[in-house]
Amino acid sequence: MTSTTCFTLAELAGALGGELHGEAEASVCSLATLQSAGEGQLSFFANGRYLKQLRATRATAVLVSARHLDECPVAAILVEDPYLAFARASQLFDWRPAVAAGVHPSAVIAEDVQVPTDAQIGAQAVIEPGVRLASGVVIGPGCVIGRDCHIGPRTRLEANVTLYPNVRLGAETLIHSAAVLGSDGFGFAPTPNGWEKICQLGGVVVGDRVEIGAGVTIDRGALDDTRIEDGVKLDNQIQIAHNVVIGRDSAIAGCTAVAGSTKIGQRCTIAGMSGITGHLEIADDTHVTAMSLVSKSIANPGVYSSGTGLEPHQQWKRNVVRFRQLDELARRVRKLEQAVELYSTEGQTDDGR
Amino acid sequence: MTSTTCFTLAELAGALGGELHGEAEASVCSLATLQSAGEGQLSFFANGRYLKQLRATRATAVLVSARHLDECPVAAILVEDPYLAFARASQLFDWRPAVAAGVHPSAVIAEDVQVPTDAQIGAQAVIEPGVRLASGVVIGPGCVIGRDCHIGPRTRLEANVTLYPNVRLGAETLIHSAAVLGSDGFGFAPTPNGWEKICQLGGVVVGDRVEIGAGVTIDRGALDDTRIEDGVKLDNQIQIAHNVVIGRDSAIAGCTAVAGSTKIGQRCTIAGMSGITGHLEIADDTHVTAMSLVSKSIANPGVYSSGTGLEPHQQWKRNVVRFRQLDELARRVRKLEQAVELYSTEGQTDDGR
Amino acid sequence: MTSTTCFTLAELAGALGGELHGEAEASVCSLATLQSAGEGQLSFFANGRYLKQLRATRATAVLVSARHLDECPVAAILVEDPYLAFARASQLFDWRPAVAAGVHPSAVIAEDVQVPTDAQIGAQAVIEPGVRLASGVVIGPGCVIGRDCHIGPRTRLEANVTLYPNVRLGAETLIHSAAVLGSDGFGFAPTPNGWEKICQLGGVVVGDRVEIGAGVTIDRGALDDTRIEDGVKLDNQIQIAHNVVIGRDSAIAGCTAVAGSTKIGQRCTIAGMSGITGHLEIADDTHVTAMSLVSKSIANPGVYSSGTGLEPHQQWKRNVVRFRQLDELARRVRKLEQAVELYSTEGQTDDGR
Repeated sequence: MTSTTCFTLAELAGALGGELHGEAEASVCSLATLQSAGEGQLSFFANGRYLKQLRATRATAVLVSARHLDECPVAAILVEDPYLAFARASQLFDWRPAVAAGVHPSAVIAEDVQVPTDAQIGAQAVIEPGVRLASGVVIGPGCVIGRDCHIGPRTRLEANVTLYPNVRLGAETLIHSAAVLGSDGFGFAPTPNGWEKICQLGGVVVGDRVEIGAGVTIDRGALDDTRIEDGVKLDNQIQIAHNVVIGRDSAIAGCTAVAGSTKIGQRCTIAGMSGITGHLEIADDTHVTAMSLVSKSIANPGVYSSGTGLEPHQQWKRNVVRFRQLDELARRVRKLEQAVELYSTEGQTDDGR
Repeated sequence: MTSTTCFTLAELAGALGGELHGEAEASVCSLATLQSAGEGQLSFFANGRYLKQLRATRATAVLVSARHLDECPVAAILVEDPYLAFARASQLFDWRPAVAAGVHPSAVIAEDVQVPTDAQIGAQAVIEPGVRLASGVVIGPGCVIGRDCHIGPRTRLEANVTLYPNVRLGAETLIHSAAVLGSDGFGFAPTPNGWEKICQLGGVVVGDRVEIGAGVTIDRGALDDTRIEDGVKLDNQIQIAHNVVIGRDSAIAGCTAVAGSTKIGQRCTIAGMSGITGHLEIADDTHVTAMSLVSKSIANPGVYSSGTGLEPHQQWKRNVVRFRQLDELARRVRKLEQAVELYSTEGQTDDGR
Repeated sequence: MTSTTCFTLAELAGALGGELHGEAEASVCSLATLQSAGEGQLSFFANGRYLKQLRATRATAVLVSARHLDECPVAAILVEDPYLAFARASQLFDWRPAVAAGVHPSAVIAEDVQVPTDAQIGAQAVIEPGVRLASGVVIGPGCVIGRDCHIGPRTRLEANVTLYPNVRLGAETLIHSAAVLGSDGFGFAPTPNGWEKICQLGGVVVGDRVEIGAGVTIDRGALDDTRIEDGVKLDNQIQIAHNVVIGRDSAIAGCTAVAGSTKIGQRCTIAGMSGITGHLEIADDTHVTAMSLVSKSIANPGVYSSGTGLEPHQQWKRNVVRFRQLDELARRVRKLEQAVELYSTEGQTDDGR
């Protein structure tokens, strides 16, 4: 299936807004890392750690910034931001087949649903009544789209995605396999005889240009909607609870969980395996490092962390015991300070005799 | 699809066992938060933090306790437990369509399976031989029900749920999308040439009125069964390993993992992102806070925690270094105490001269 | 469906390479724990903790090592490694039906795909063009196999597995339900107007005898492939990011996440809920305990940990406050040491007067 698209270096420099230092007619047909690239491949240099590999690369050409142009032993396409240029180049070399418009005959589509002529509906998909599909939508094989969902232009659902009823997706959004949007929020009232369910009557609203990773779950709101704003990127296996709001262009890495009604600001980055408890407000431009627990609102942008560092297990066991005694240790230090201060005072008194 | 059901305040007060303070014939057709509610909407006041919003609400009526009745600027339905009354009201206003009995023609159902006339089997579902379905069961689109599973009365599987063979579900249980019950427990014997698989020959038994979140995985037992007792509530993306037992009415929040053969008692609550290691016994009425690691059995009910709190990254980095030296620090403090005690003794000796 | 296979003790001893101490013609038809086993059941003793249960067992026979042979009150099959013998016995007693070759008529298989006569393709499965299936492959109901995937001999996909295009699986590998292989790696370049997607052009390569748990997600590589080597065992809900390499015979427990481009060595064990950040190298034979964060490369084999231990919440709250002041506390101890040393010196001077 691989559709090989080749470009001359001149064409690439033009497409990426770069300045070519090398042979205009040389041809590249794929992307590769500095180390593995060979004849006919384009690479990029965006991380100082790989300078040695730049100097030794056998790529046909490299995307490089002015600062490292002299280090490049092969043709160079000079760009301001090589990593961004690489991102754009990756789109030029995307080998995935274009959307093939049409409805697979095994798909089950409710009678009242209108499928645009340029949409693609995969095998064994299920689309329930009241669903609205915009132009260029792709619904992968095995997806289930619940009643009254709206899916915006050119939004793509990979295979086996599940949308519960009343989920609304914007334009050019991408949802990966096994993701679930619109499941019930975790809401129960305690009673003497167990838990009483709070029916979850809100929906889920996802903006434009959002990416949602494989196995992500996003619960519907209890009364109002859960909201994922434009440009948000969610990695795999993230859990978003009911009534959470994630602000524009924030990015969250894998396996993070956000508890109910928390509002995350714009342009935040949350590293993987983090937990954010419920009913918090996280300021715009907040950054959280891996496996941190956020249990209070964050009012000031910045970088935040929790946890301890890795250490050999035997040493860790001793330190963990001490952690449990830390408050006591601090009190003992305070007493020592008082005692020593006492002596010190006494000493001064002695000196003054 | 939204089916609007309206009630008079008198009807609602009757249904919720409350006392109406307001116009009996006023009509409400939906639920909303205090802040967003307007004409024709019912709200509730269950959290002191929202007192300001209660005073300003424009809801048609509010569920409120005696203590805050005077603060309510609109009609009130006086109840003992407003949160519980809200849970019950949410069920009255549930807009989801009623179960539509019938088997979708695209479903694949083994010949020996009897489908009750009031059951609903969704499109593209697969039901293997030997499965027993009770009255009122709902199997969502794309579900796969393995051989010899038993599903109890009025239990509902949302879309794309997978049950391996020999899983037994009780009555009125709800399982959300992408959940997997009955996958192999993680059991391997080490050998000099890698891992030898231990076939997982037990099953999974789930009680009545259980709720299992989206993307939850529950492994089958190695020899005996994995057991989820009546009334248990599991949030999304929880992992339950082989031979775990979760006691009646316990509730576990999202992304928590419970390792093999651990027994969790009744009425426990485990907050999200927690880990519970294997072969433990957790007492009834134990509560664990978010992102805690439980690595020993808990004999006494109470609230337990582990981890550290969030802090600015630069400050955290310094503290993390000190954590690695904590045992040494404690030893140094001990030495100081001995030294100061020594001086103190000497001092006393001096004093006594 | 349960197919009961019975063996005489002589047959079992032969099959497991053990020495029978007991009646050769006695028959066992299933496996059970020491505690629950009865007439016609085989059990095993592999953990000293269960000695009391061994002494009281009512199993027909027990797999036991020479050291505990005398403690066994019933027939014994003497083996070198009882746990390994139990693993092998579990395979003898596996009750799951054998592979039933054939293609379910509801499966959708691209015209160019050749299905071996001994393969089994489940109901509602989807197999896209260019896929190659080896002898004895099992594709469960509802699976979606993307374009150009290769699946090796006797590899089995349980129900509702998703393979994106260009995923290659070795022989005798087992993939559990709701797993997703080949989803896009989480790669975006920052721009002043949000995130620019880096198309993920690599694949996923999985070796022989690998087991991948329910709900696992393995992202495709950005340029090169993500690689899971022979004999690796992954528990449920693990997240493997793009370009990760997991070395031969390593085993990872549930809910662990490995970030991009990290290389894990051979024979490592990583306990559950752990996080491993990106671009690291983890030495062969490294072991990480539960809920640890690995944020630096590990050059030396050994056991590593991070985190704190569980404690009563009120005590923990006090200690957490002290952790935030730990660097300051250490500085205060240093000052005390200097002060006490000073006195000590002064004292000596005094003594010397």
